[in-house]
Amino acid sequence: MARLIKTEKEVEGRYETVWLVVEEDSLDQWPAGPRDVVGKPAVRKSARARARGEARYTADVRLPGMLHAAILRSPYAHARVRRIDLSRALAAPGVRGAIGPGDAPELDEVAGYHGAPVAAVAADSEREARAALKLIDVDWEVLEPVLDPDEAVRRGQLVGEPRRVERGDVDAALAEADVVIESEYRTQTVLHNALETHQSVCVWEGERLVVYTSTQDIWGVRNAIARTLDLPTDQVRVVCEYMGGGFGAKNEPGHYTFVAAELARRTGRPVRCALTRREENLATGNRNATIQRLTVGARRDGTIVALAGEFVASLGWDGWMAFTAGPMHGLYACPNVRTVEYGAKLNTPPMAAFRAPGFVEGTFGLECLIDELAAKLDMDPLELRRRNYADRDPATGAPYSANQLLECYRRAEKHWARRHEVRARSEGPWRRGVGLASQIWYGGGGPPAYAWVRVGSDGRATVITAMQDIGTGTRTAMSQIAAEELGFPLDRVDVVLGDTDRGPYAVPAAGSSTTPSMGPAVRAAAADARRQILDIAAQRYERPAESLRIREGRIEASDGESWPVEEVLGLLGNAQILGTGARGPNPAGMAVHTFGVQVAEVAVDIETGEVRVERLAAIHDVGRVINPLGASSQLEGGVIQGIGHTLSEERLVDPTSGQVLTQTLDAYRMPTIADVPEIVTELVDVPDPNLTSLGAKGLGEPPIIPVAAAIANAIRDATGAAVHELPIDREEILRALREAADRRAGALGEGAKERHETPATV
Amino acid sequence: MARLIKTEKEVEGRYETVWLVVEEDSLDQWPAGPRDVVGKPAVRKSARARARGEARYTADVRLPGMLHAAILRSPYAHARVRRIDLSRALAAPGVRGAIGPGDAPELDEVAGYHGAPVAAVAADSEREARAALKLIDVDWEVLEPVLDPDEAVRRGQLVGEPRRVERGDVDAALAEADVVIESEYRTQTVLHNALETHQSVCVWEGERLVVYTSTQDIWGVRNAIARTLDLPTDQVRVVCEYMGGGFGAKNEPGHYTFVAAELARRTGRPVRCALTRREENLATGNRNATIQRLTVGARRDGTIVALAGEFVASLGWDGWMAFTAGPMHGLYACPNVRTVEYGAKLNTPPMAAFRAPGFVEGTFGLECLIDELAAKLDMDPLELRRRNYADRDPATGAPYSANQLLECYRRAEKHWARRHEVRARSEGPWRRGVGLASQIWYGGGGPPAYAWVRVGSDGRATVITAMQDIGTGTRTAMSQIAAEELGFPLDRVDVVLGDTDRGPYAVPAAGSSTTPSMGPAVRAAAADARRQILDIAAQRYERPAESLRIREGRIEASDGESWPVEEVLGLLGNAQILGTGARGPNPAGMAVHTFGVQVAEVAVDIETGEVRVERLAAIHDVGRVINPLGASSQLEGGVIQGIGHTLSEERLVDPTSGQVLTQTLDAYRMPTIADVPEIVTELVDVPDPNLTSLGAKGLGEPPIIPVAAAIANAIRDATGAAVHELPIDREEILRALREAADRRAGALGEGAKERHETPATV
Repeated sequence: MARLIKTEKEVEGRYETVWLVVEEDSLDQWPAGPRDVVGKPAVRKSARARARGEARYTADVRLPGMLHAAILRSPYAHARVRRIDLSRALAAPGVRGAIGPGDAPELDEVAGYHGAPVAAVAADSEREARAALKLIDVDWEVLEPVLDPDEAVRRGQLVGEPRRVERGDVDAALAEADVVIESEYRTQTVLHNALETHQSVCVWEGERLVVYTSTQDIWGVRNAIARTLDLPTDQVRVVCEYMGGGFGAKNEPGHYTFVAAELARRTGRPVRCALTRREENLATGNRNATIQRLTVGARRDGTIVALAGEFVASLGWDGWMAFTAGPMHGLYACPNVRTVEYGAKLNTPPMAAFRAPGFVEGTFGLECLIDELAAKLDMDPLELRRRNYADRDPATGAPYSANQLLECYRRAEKHWARRHEVRARSEGPWRRGVGLASQIWYGGGGPPAYAWVRVGSDGRATVITAMQDIGTGTRTAMSQIAAEELGFPLDRVDVVLGDTDRGPYAVPAAGSSTTPSMGPAVRAAAADARRQILDIAAQRYERPAESLRIREGRIEASDGESWPVEEVLGLLGNAQILGTGARGPNPAGMAVHTFGVQVAEVAVDIETGEVRVERLAAIHDVGRVINPLGASSQLEGGVIQGIGHTLSEERLVDPTSGQVLTQTLDAYRMPTIADVPEIVTELVDVPDPNLTSLGAKGLGEPPIIPVAAAIANAIRDATGAAVHELPIDREEILRALREAADRRAGALGEGAKERHETPATV
Repeated sequence: MARLIKTEKEVEGRYETVWLVVEEDSLDQWPAGPRDVVGKPAVRKSARARARGEARYTADVRLPGMLHAAILRSPYAHARVRRIDLSRALAAPGVRGAIGPGDAPELDEVAGYHGAPVAAVAADSEREARAALKLIDVDWEVLEPVLDPDEAVRRGQLVGEPRRVERGDVDAALAEADVVIESEYRTQTVLHNALETHQSVCVWEGERLVVYTSTQDIWGVRNAIARTLDLPTDQVRVVCEYMGGGFGAKNEPGHYTFVAAELARRTGRPVRCALTRREENLATGNRNATIQRLTVGARRDGTIVALAGEFVASLGWDGWMAFTAGPMHGLYACPNVRTVEYGAKLNTPPMAAFRAPGFVEGTFGLECLIDELAAKLDMDPLELRRRNYADRDPATGAPYSANQLLECYRRAEKHWARRHEVRARSEGPWRRGVGLASQIWYGGGGPPAYAWVRVGSDGRATVITAMQDIGTGTRTAMSQIAAEELGFPLDRVDVVLGDTDRGPYAVPAAGSSTTPSMGPAVRAAAADARRQILDIAAQRYERPAESLRIREGRIEASDGESWPVEEVLGLLGNAQILGTGARGPNPAGMAVHTFGVQVAEVAVDIETGEVRVERLAAIHDVGRVINPLGASSQLEGGVIQGIGHTLSEERLVDPTSGQVLTQTLDAYRMPTIADVPEIVTELVDVPDPNLTSLGAKGLGEPPIIPVAAAIANAIRDATGAAVHELPIDREEILRALREAADRRAGALGEGAKERHETPATV
């Protein structure tokens, strides 16, 4: 029976009251370790389709009579449309429709950032559509942009209310602390830049709207569109079979979808709206820049007694405030914590979720600060972290469902022990060092989450869920879980996903929730199907169902007889067995988190400021591992994206005009294969005994979280220089080296910092 | 729990051993009569989409890059390809692929009938494809065609074994009978000629084959394709959202589908293969012609003591033998029945199922014979039929699950009573009369049949089943059943069907099985969804679930409070409730049948032989009526198609060459609106108390069954002339009139018949 639970749900740091409809799940967890299929490395189910170009991405959707839309964007960071004339564009060759401010959701006459959508045309070809944009006459009133986050906070120009979270008595604890360190950290704006740009194809089938879109959340997009366009939800169908990445930027319909839907409505034709790479860099969201003013107080033995922080998040024109203070509240057993977070509303492109939003930024600040404290206390950084291990959730006092952070620390030792040997390899201007950082994140997923498993008369099974595969190998993991539970070989299980018209509700591919949410639902559905197969087999072979099991595609009786599963399934004829399953509830009163430790080895050229990451060991606790091959790929991907974030990527805007300066991949420097170090991945692989029938947590976000701090701490280990700002480019390295030299020379007092002026990286 | 049943299943007169996997269904039947939604007239759900051209038929499927296939057909009724050269066709403009005999299933080097498929090409346009056909060089060896069915039987050239069915001792009974009549009847070949011709669009998505096809059985087509092409079944997806009729001719993939699939494989492009109207008249199956040599023996009081029949079915090049002897075995309580049926294999296009195959033909013969007997006994035909009413299945002795035939007779009385007044309206050459005929057919449907009902947070429900709507209003009936069970208004329920990738196994739209099979499954799924809604509502509103019900979209508590269902469903957020349901088993040991009586009023011009049907009353027992509006439309459609069959339609072939002479709708005379009489429909509407939770039987086929005999019997009533052959065209009328005159003049002995020579209508 479905149970209704009234609960608080943390949504990126905000607590919301939600009612959850959950099902019970009575399956026992499998024992730990590899089984017939689960826990063994499996090559991606979709590898062949992807490699052969057969996988249909939104970018591949071509419908008969399809038009192409292009969007006119504001050339100013802040401006208002006084007057707009679409008539010349409408008369242009191939143009079939044109819309302006107010004609579609998110087409607005006030442009709050460079790249804000203002108008759009649909034409027979993309070339004609883009040519017609030049014929739209706009009379702009240019307004003053606000670009400085501290200035915005001073003016009270905020997105939402400041978020204040406090426990204990921070002031009293700081007053009694043996050591207090204040330090400021800054992180930059970075862009998702997924391989597939944001795009949708919309077509009206009568009163139904079908939307092919590159999204992480087909259900969320469906409901948002239905709500916005005032349609019954089942009259909107959202399809995303394959997608070329999202990283958090593809959770919502987006203006391009509404543009395509409206132009499709007006023209009666399918309309494709695909953003270019430049548009991708302007108007699809970003990880927001932060300023973090942090304080830590500790006893001489390393016990952290107080943590405080003031955070300013540069949210741009719109967005929401990620929980940058999250790591400060959750990573260490500190009784006194006080944070305030401000969301600065600026005339820059809007913030969007980006792989562990808030925690990536907050962990950089916190874990650098912890290393500053270790240096001050002259204590081993690993030992200092162990000493402040929280054996229950410090924010709520709730026990963890499982916590293998100490095991991660233990496994990190061998990598950490390399530091002496690494340092010894310093030579000439190249100094080498090792740094580490730890990490906490969510990853328990949650209900509601449903799945079906269909078994046909030919002895093959199909997992059907209306979930997405953002590119993380979801099809493979879900196939493994179903195959394991069914007792089928892996190659007899397929997965169908990505269509709200096909399959039950599934969670977004966000928040590292896919495997922990959908995995138990898939297992439950497979178990339901298995039960039905055995019920029929019991009647067919005249044996009690309890004496039968399925293994490797054969029904095995306890008396030693066995039959291929196709034999009994063949009785179904054209029909099939359908197993349905739902994920059970999260453990009541428990905190579900993932943990990890990363150890980076770097080489720094102290003359040029060049940094090379030479090795990075990532040790993570994500509960049970379904596919070790896919899991280590995920760790590697997170680390590589983290290296880009740490060393090179930055969205720059002109500090006066607010114009985005980095619109191309050439200007916006993502890491290439030459930047990728040796990556050593290690998964603790102990099922969370309290979490569902699977014991698996999520894996998508954790690996990027500690990368920046581990690298920054390694740079300090190599050079003695403390970096405070991302990206750690040559300027920042040279500044930190100068500061360290000055400090050694006694020119700077303790705690004081030389700040250099850089362009506002809001 | 699913139960495995080993049973005999009658498949068009053949008994096959089948294992059935069935679910129990614990719902009680609703009381008889109209309810909130069920039993009240409802306008078709799809009326708007169909009227506005938004409904997507296979004929509307256009895929990017789609090619058009055309098929080369044998110009001979019997021939062999000595040599075929595709090279000139392959080089023709726009041509992308060409295949010959052996390259695709059903492309054969031996052509067994005029129109048999031999080769095919795919080109950018249909025009280019058809032009290229002319460039295919074939060296034909022309073979002798066999066209006479009696000749084929004599030679032993049969499709399958002769079917002999016997009960009691016919010879002894005939020897003791007071009256014996021997009579011969012939029925012609007729064509389905559905509005949408046979067609498919095939596209390979990697190793998956997607087939859009105009079919009555997406699952059967899916499995037949998978089996034939050796693919895992779940790698074949079959889609048929809307179809323009089938009438039994669209149960299989057909050669055009295999042609499209193979050309799509070779070209890597979607391929459409749509037959023209001429091809439709050549190579898509037909109702087979029959010769029926019948004998009846009766006592003077009208008790029928023996029935015997020899049937020859002209099956053409392929097909299967429908149960033409079925009515003789099932309609009357006769203890002694013996029949033999031969399937003649001829060089004519193959037989295919056609609305009540066998029973339409067999009922014409039997029910004319019964009227001959009534005349001989000088007994009222209605009274004679009543006297021979079977109160249990005469073939097996099993009780009927329900039988309202006597009620049909009772209701027929008022129409039958009009005969005196009708006859009195004879004037000049126009003679008027009234005839009746009764009917038995299957219609109980059966498991397995599954359905889902999805309820969203906006308080709307969607019925999801992978069934077809052959055009009978399935969407409407299923919506009504779900709305009734959910307590929702009808306009809040939609239906999705026609896609094997979406929704569970459903029965073919054949054998009048849709409503009786799918209806209970839909009701069970809706009940499951309702239970889940009330479970959540009970928790939300803190009342026992038993005290809550849903009506007209509101949750009503027994204490008088009520809430809109959206309120509690809104708690689902983006998720939904999924109810699943299956049809329960048929009642064990019972015969499930539909019954009906039709009363026809005709006017016959005895000078020209012209016949006009002026009124036809159709009274049918199909159990519970879901949608009275849809049900009477079905009765009307069946009657009209029956009138065409009775009076005008006939597929003619040249008796020497076997060439099909009636390839166009101009030559093949279907009834027009001018041929449609006043049709009075009456449904007994008493739920079958033993049949599922619904008590509804099928309705698609019964109304065509008694039409021909009712009209023939009315002609005899009007003129005294006994027709023996379909169609009852002017020649047949004039022949029968001459025969009657001769008989009156004593020129012919009793029982003797003048046979005139007509072209073989095989």
